[in-house]
Amino acid sequence: MAVARIAVVAGDGIGTEVVAEARKVLDAVLPGIESTEYDLGATRYNRTGEVLPDSVRDELAQHDAILLGAIGDPSVPPGVLERGLLLRLRFDFDQYVNLRPSRLWPGTTSPLANVKPGEVDLTVVREGTEGLYVGAGGVLHRGTAAEIATEESLNTRHGVERVIRDAFDRAERRERRKVTLVHKTNVLTHAGGLWARTFAEIAAEHPDVSTEYQHVDAASMFLVTQPQRYDVIVTDNLFGDILTDIAAAVTGGIGLAASGSINPDRRFPSTFEPVHGSAPDIAGKGIADPVAAVLSASLLLDHLGHPEQARRVSEAVATELAGRKPGQPVRTAEVGDRLAGLSR
Amino acid sequence: MAVARIAVVAGDGIGTEVVAEARKVLDAVLPGIESTEYDLGATRYNRTGEVLPDSVRDELAQHDAILLGAIGDPSVPPGVLERGLLLRLRFDFDQYVNLRPSRLWPGTTSPLANVKPGEVDLTVVREGTEGLYVGAGGVLHRGTAAEIATEESLNTRHGVERVIRDAFDRAERRERRKVTLVHKTNVLTHAGGLWARTFAEIAAEHPDVSTEYQHVDAASMFLVTQPQRYDVIVTDNLFGDILTDIAAAVTGGIGLAASGSINPDRRFPSTFEPVHGSAPDIAGKGIADPVAAVLSASLLLDHLGHPEQARRVSEAVATELAGRKPGQPVRTAEVGDRLAGLSR
Ligand SMILES: CC(C)[C@H](C(=O)O)[C@@H](O)C(=O)O
Ligand SMILES: CC(C)[C@H](C(=O)O)[C@@H](O)C(=O)O
Repeated sequence: MAVARIAVVAGDGIGTEVVAEARKVLDAVLPGIESTEYDLGATRYNRTGEVLPDSVRDELAQHDAILLGAIGDPSVPPGVLERGLLLRLRFDFDQYVNLRPSRLWPGTTSPLANVKPGEVDLTVVREGTEGLYVGAGGVLHRGTAAEIATEESLNTRHGVERVIRDAFDRAERRERRKVTLVHKTNVLTHAGGLWARTFAEIAAEHPDVSTEYQHVDAASMFLVTQPQRYDVIVTDNLFGDILTDIAAAVTGGIGLAASGSINPDRRFPSTFEPVHGSAPDIAGKGIADPVAAVLSASLLLDHLGHPEQARRVSEAVATELAGRKPGQPVRTAEVGDRLAGLSR
Repeated sequence: MAVARIAVVAGDGIGTEVVAEARKVLDAVLPGIESTEYDLGATRYNRTGEVLPDSVRDELAQHDAILLGAIGDPSVPPGVLERGLLLRLRFDFDQYVNLRPSRLWPGTTSPLANVKPGEVDLTVVREGTEGLYVGAGGVLHRGTAAEIATEESLNTRHGVERVIRDAFDRAERRERRKVTLVHKTNVLTHAGGLWARTFAEIAAEHPDVSTEYQHVDAASMFLVTQPQRYDVIVTDNLFGDILTDIAAAVTGGIGLAASGSINPDRRFPSTFEPVHGSAPDIAGKGIADPVAAVLSASLLLDHLGHPEQARRVSEAVATELAGRKPGQPVRTAEVGDRLAGLSR
């Protein structure tokens, strides 16, 4: 029997290149993974008009995890693949924990003058199935002077509680054991109240975890001025979207950022993917950095119950990055080979 | 007849101290302003339980503008003064342009390593009367496992169009003439569509203004990695709240950031205030930096039709900041005296 069955959605542009390296590393560190490739993304959409056929969705559902490269191309109207594929997977597979760690790795540099490598190590636990992402809302009198458009943020105790619990569980396993709730309770009083009350209750069950609350505007500022202060941040879907990009920016850019859209119960597969896009400008040249894809594979290993292998992969990345000279060009396959060797 | 009638709401903590200096500068640069002080904020709330009595609101409405110091104290439950006073003024007085310029002044330093003084000069035109700030939404089955909480973002063609028009008008008066629309059209398709279509129409009326669109997550990142790229940013109420704090952070902090909640029609008074809070920890010591309050006074002058005086005040600030030694402590009254002298 295979140690794990994963679906590989390499996707578009550099997606195929970086996923190949992530596969290399996975095979090196955990032999016996069975993988199936799925052709989804802009190329398929342009060829067939299909985004995610139900039959493919059902096949994906049979896997332990999905490894995704990057989806998207300027030729596809904005939103089609995001909503039809990425968000659909998050919702259909109940991927309620959107996990985005940010570390300022030794060997890399932050755009922030006063932050040194090694000082930032935070993880954002972003809710993935509720909030403003549900698509509720509408448009009336479209195209006229009387037009109104609404967007509704839906938040349930069920959804808020489970993601906050996950954040506390993760904090329990970390050194600093601190959870920061980010919301905008002074303006979004309805949803903010639910988040704040639920947070307070779960915090009371975790006396060994320290907690704080920040408004999203303040947190956005502090991520720029003092990113060191954060350990685990838990927040809603939209705030998480914004905060994780700021966190990525201050820790060397989305080129290094990994993410997991996780269904912690494992009733459905979780998706692991680099935060960066398909980068059509550098696609096919063999110069894309596979580090974010490899770190996503490390998250995948951890999620599937192989923490030791996950650690070896992330340590390989640490060694790789520490050894890079500033400005040194990257060769995708060489980096993958090195990381596979280091992880073994 | 007075050249202008302004209501002064000094507020709490350092609010009173910095407003005194802003008044000094206003008197120096535009003699004959008539001003009335209004006691509002945490101190009044704690004494009387009142936030903004209707009678006071009606008196405020009789002024040309409101100069506000800072509102808030830890003794007041979060949200009470924000919603009852600050947001109420924005809504009651139809202050639909929330204007927040960010400049990296010579003499100040950015937390960003690669950004030099003089390189950043952007202004955010944030919608102030719609979106998620309207308070629409509710809570059902509160405190139970079945609880749901909603927040609704309301956007009208009326509201979106007028603020986008204002942004283009401001861009027309600037050197680079560029407007960036920030939204999240790939997820918030209903409101995003209204914003994007309206933006495209108004852009077509301004062929001399260049335009771009960015998703809010990307813009948050670019504000950290390349703040130089922005000229005028127009965005909705909540995105504007977040983006302006990031912009303030990368240009030396909210200690220097000014803002105006503007009713461009002048049917109602506009409010001008520093972005910083009441800073109870340093209140009463005479060491608060009045620069943000003085820059807010400069926005006030511009709004009331005194662009030459506004320019003199902001040039005085430029001179003041350029002359400061790094780490040099600030004496509130001395800075105010210097700025008044320089503006005269
Ligand atoms: C592509 C888009 C729908 C998506 C999101 O908003 O969640 C992306 O920005 C992300 O953060 O994964
Ligand atoms: C105090 C709060 C209600 C307010 C807002 O969210 O608009 C503040 O953050 C601001 O930016 O002026």
